[in-house]
Amino acid sequence: MSTILSARDLEFLLFEWLHVEDLSARPRFAEHDRESYDALLGLCEEIATEHFAPHYRKSDTEEPVFDGEKVRLIPEIESALQKFAQADLMGLTIDEEHGGLQLPHVVASACMAWFTAANIGTAAYSFLTVANAGLLLAHGTPEQVERYVQPMLEGRFFGTMTLSEPHAGSSLGDVTTRAVPADDGTHRIFGSKMWISGGDHEMGDNIVHLVLAKLPDAPAGSRGISLFIVPKHLVGEDGSIGERNDVVLAGINHKLGSRGTVNTAPVFGSGAFTPGGAAGAVGYLVGEAHKGLSYMFHMMNAARLGVGMSATTTAYTAYLKSLDYARTRPQGRALTAADPAGPQVPIIQHADVRRMLLAQKSYVEGALALNLYCSRLLDEQASAEDDAERLATGQLLDVLTPIAKSWPSQWGQESCSLAIQVLGGSGYTRDHDLEAHWRDQRLNPIHEGTHGIQALDLLGRKILGGGGAALMALAGRIEQTVARASELGGEPTAYADALKAAVDRLGEVTMGLAGLGDPDRMLANATVYLEAAGHVVIAWMWLEQLVAVGERTGDFYDGKRAAARYFFRWELPKVAPQLDLLASGDTTTLEMREDWF
Amino acid sequence: MSTILSARDLEFLLFEWLHVEDLSARPRFAEHDRESYDALLGLCEEIATEHFAPHYRKSDTEEPVFDGEKVRLIPEIESALQKFAQADLMGLTIDEEHGGLQLPHVVASACMAWFTAANIGTAAYSFLTVANAGLLLAHGTPEQVERYVQPMLEGRFFGTMTLSEPHAGSSLGDVTTRAVPADDGTHRIFGSKMWISGGDHEMGDNIVHLVLAKLPDAPAGSRGISLFIVPKHLVGEDGSIGERNDVVLAGINHKLGSRGTVNTAPVFGSGAFTPGGAAGAVGYLVGEAHKGLSYMFHMMNAARLGVGMSATTTAYTAYLKSLDYARTRPQGRALTAADPAGPQVPIIQHADVRRMLLAQKSYVEGALALNLYCSRLLDEQASAEDDAERLATGQLLDVLTPIAKSWPSQWGQESCSLAIQVLGGSGYTRDHDLEAHWRDQRLNPIHEGTHGIQALDLLGRKILGGGGAALMALAGRIEQTVARASELGGEPTAYADALKAAVDRLGEVTMGLAGLGDPDRMLANATVYLEAAGHVVIAWMWLEQLVAVGERTGDFYDGKRAAARYFFRWELPKVAPQLDLLASGDTTTLEMREDWF
Repeated sequence: MSTILSARDLEFLLFEWLHVEDLSARPRFAEHDRESYDALLGLCEEIATEHFAPHYRKSDTEEPVFDGEKVRLIPEIESALQKFAQADLMGLTIDEEHGGLQLPHVVASACMAWFTAANIGTAAYSFLTVANAGLLLAHGTPEQVERYVQPMLEGRFFGTMTLSEPHAGSSLGDVTTRAVPADDGTHRIFGSKMWISGGDHEMGDNIVHLVLAKLPDAPAGSRGISLFIVPKHLVGEDGSIGERNDVVLAGINHKLGSRGTVNTAPVFGSGAFTPGGAAGAVGYLVGEAHKGLSYMFHMMNAARLGVGMSATTTAYTAYLKSLDYARTRPQGRALTAADPAGPQVPIIQHADVRRMLLAQKSYVEGALALNLYCSRLLDEQASAEDDAERLATGQLLDVLTPIAKSWPSQWGQESCSLAIQVLGGSGYTRDHDLEAHWRDQRLNPIHEGTHGIQALDLLGRKILGGGGAALMALAGRIEQTVARASELGGEPTAYADALKAAVDRLGEVTMGLAGLGDPDRMLANATVYLEAAGHVVIAWMWLEQLVAVGERTGDFYDGKRAAARYFFRWELPKVAPQLDLLASGDTTTLEMREDWF
Repeated sequence: MSTILSARDLEFLLFEWLHVEDLSARPRFAEHDRESYDALLGLCEEIATEHFAPHYRKSDTEEPVFDGEKVRLIPEIESALQKFAQADLMGLTIDEEHGGLQLPHVVASACMAWFTAANIGTAAYSFLTVANAGLLLAHGTPEQVERYVQPMLEGRFFGTMTLSEPHAGSSLGDVTTRAVPADDGTHRIFGSKMWISGGDHEMGDNIVHLVLAKLPDAPAGSRGISLFIVPKHLVGEDGSIGERNDVVLAGINHKLGSRGTVNTAPVFGSGAFTPGGAAGAVGYLVGEAHKGLSYMFHMMNAARLGVGMSATTTAYTAYLKSLDYARTRPQGRALTAADPAGPQVPIIQHADVRRMLLAQKSYVEGALALNLYCSRLLDEQASAEDDAERLATGQLLDVLTPIAKSWPSQWGQESCSLAIQVLGGSGYTRDHDLEAHWRDQRLNPIHEGTHGIQALDLLGRKILGGGGAALMALAGRIEQTVARASELGGEPTAYADALKAAVDRLGEVTMGLAGLGDPDRMLANATVYLEAAGHVVIAWMWLEQLVAVGERTGDFYDGKRAAARYFFRWELPKVAPQLDLLASGDTTTLEMREDWF
């Protein structure tokens, strides 16, 4: 079995580029050092390889089954998650005071990369649980934390994010699930949800749903939504598992990929159960009324970064598998080979196969760099020494988050497709994992905010909405890299010039869009903007890596140089026609009429 | 159920653009007219809709099963194929003297488009059979035609193309299947094949395998391969079904998509049967010894055009299904909507959804135009009045074939992905057909010559190999369109200028590549060349359509104008960085070393 991820690349990114050990100088991370990071990364590689990867195919072919009452998963999923929890991996970034390891996000992201690379379908249950716990730690009461968060960190409870409804996916302001206040200070929840991952199963002792619902006095739209804890089983004051709450499934969704993660349509307050003898699912308000969506958006930014990382690692593992095949599969001969009876050569010797491998390498290593860079920013934000630093990193994170989610989702798909193509007919069969990674990947531009929603978020909210300040902050950071690369001469300097030109042009185009005035026109081509900005950012990540490579010699560094060269020669130029289109204020799609289709 | 293909678009392309009825002036097609074409197209729409489309999902979920002896297909597949054969659709383009309808290829292609749109997995059995029959008509003896072709046209026998072996896919010169001459003039075949579609099943009375194998005295490589008929059951002189021949399955392949078409690994001469009491599968030489690969390549050009059409129609039907969804699914509101409690709007009203629909429209209608144009060229070739016309159309077909295969395969994938994206989470479920079309589509850049093989064929063989004459022929045809469009003024003239510039630049780039001298460098970036040339050709197809639209008014024609506008504004500009890369003689992938990965 080929390795599922490159430990060498992680080492380069974390320690030779991002200098993660420097974070130990900050009080928050003072207890960690390079040695402890290495040990933890090694442990994650081991658990992921031994307990997550082996059932990757099985969790696809034997997908979750709902018998009308219970959801059955293959047992390997729970076993793997128990190994995960027992190694204290649920609480990697959580404060020590709550029993977590208080690790830097950047290290935690690298740890989690092993699990998403190994088996995204199984890893998803832990990520949902960690996200749920993180939200309750931020907004829950101490009692809620004790009752629900601690068991989640121990792997006894699992968590969900219960947001969407059949008619309200991208448009969460339209949720209609109701929360009715009860006399004892709790609420009763009634409504149907949709697309809820991990929404039911028999793992652990309980499932903690975080549910968006509307109170009776709620204002219309997104400002009138509250957040509730709705456990599958009520939990006693002593932590004991009590009566069954009124949440049941209308059914489960049968997906193209990511099949190991059960996706459900839960119903709250259907009357199937009457906890405490009354109608409705018992819910506990989190934080203040009507602020649920803002709490969720905080979590959602982390989730979006997580989706980006999953997209990257899905493509990364597919790349490594196709590379392994290309090294060993003989087929054909050199174009100039004279003897048709001579031995066939491994396909990695064909230029077009090298093209497909090099493209994958440039996509997955570029995306991984961005994902880890964003995690590093989270750490800078969390351990900022003053408000100015906190604001600056926050601004940068704001603008990078939709890109770090969307770019790996889009190019990770292309990357997985190239991995299939390297294998030819074999890649089209279920004998190899590539087709499954390609199917898994297709979810990423859809969940946690579609590609189009990310585009509106980036251009509408983050850039134009903030008067361009976030883009200026990004451009400022890129300029620093450009300056360092310019000192190196040769290829880095040439690429620095190209990147500088692209960033300048992106700035001009943004000013042009801002000047259009009409929101419909400003945002009509937001997706093109997202994609162009994404390519610029990944080019930046490659220039950053080139600077880190510096003068070092050896195959690994030559590989980094080649992938950077590929990205600057083959990929960055694709941005030019995109920016031209945006600069023209094109209205083709805006003016398209329904009757013309 | 939404329609599976657009009869209106077919009508436009066939009769308002390609003026197919003019072909009746040629003796070969004199017996057909617009009325007979319309009747036949209507019949195909009806049979495809009623007998092929309904089991599309079932043939995916209940894929073929091999029990070690027999292959079981769902019964709907045979029923549909019998309807197809009973309507005389097996022999659409076959000469009347052999019992065919002697239809123009362009009409036959449009007919077949209904079936591939409805259910590519089922339609594939008929196409394999038709291709097999066509090859035997071209190269078989009259006796072979009578014994095998007639039953295939009647739907009693099915055909296969048995080329690849486990170690010889793209590299067919490496086949090792042996053909040993027997005393009675027949041969005995021994060897293992791979990736053989329709390689076994219980439909009809017999399966006619066309098998590539090497005679004992064969020269090495592709010049030493012969072609044999190897029937599953021997056929008596009176056409009776005789003894079982020695062809059995080692197994079947389990695919990502196109699951209705069984894909097999047959073994010839394993000893499972001993026809006539001797070892080996009985085979009958087709044509001359050692010329098998050239016969196959003739067939393969038709097969490649067929793959292109299947890719187009798979994407076309996905487009129509996503359009149907977008018209009816409410979600969100206009960006400028003031009232969050107001009703949600159908998603087709969102600019980004219109972008995804318009992109699909421009891809599938552009690709369909190219597919039909190529079929029209086949007709001009087949009914040419002199050698000059035959040569000219042949040259154009040569250069367009790899594009007509690859472009719909590549952009049809993107198109199907956009169709999924329009549906959001629903698109990711197996409740809708989109995910299945997307999976089916992924086969197209792989089979009948991979994307990379098409690129080498286009640039290496068809263009540089012929000294550029084929590209000149293409450029000449495009110039004619440019001239006509330039007379129209307005948008057509602007687009004509853009197309002219792109074609000129493609010519310059080609000259530059030719001047490199070294074959490895000339062909290193052949795939980029294929993709750039493809976009130029589809832009040409859109300009052709705009010329046909002329001044006509109405929603249909406005839709054509909008899709052409989209292609010229959004797509054609993507060619510029590709041509720049080619012009630079970039050696990034060529110089990439195995150790650097």
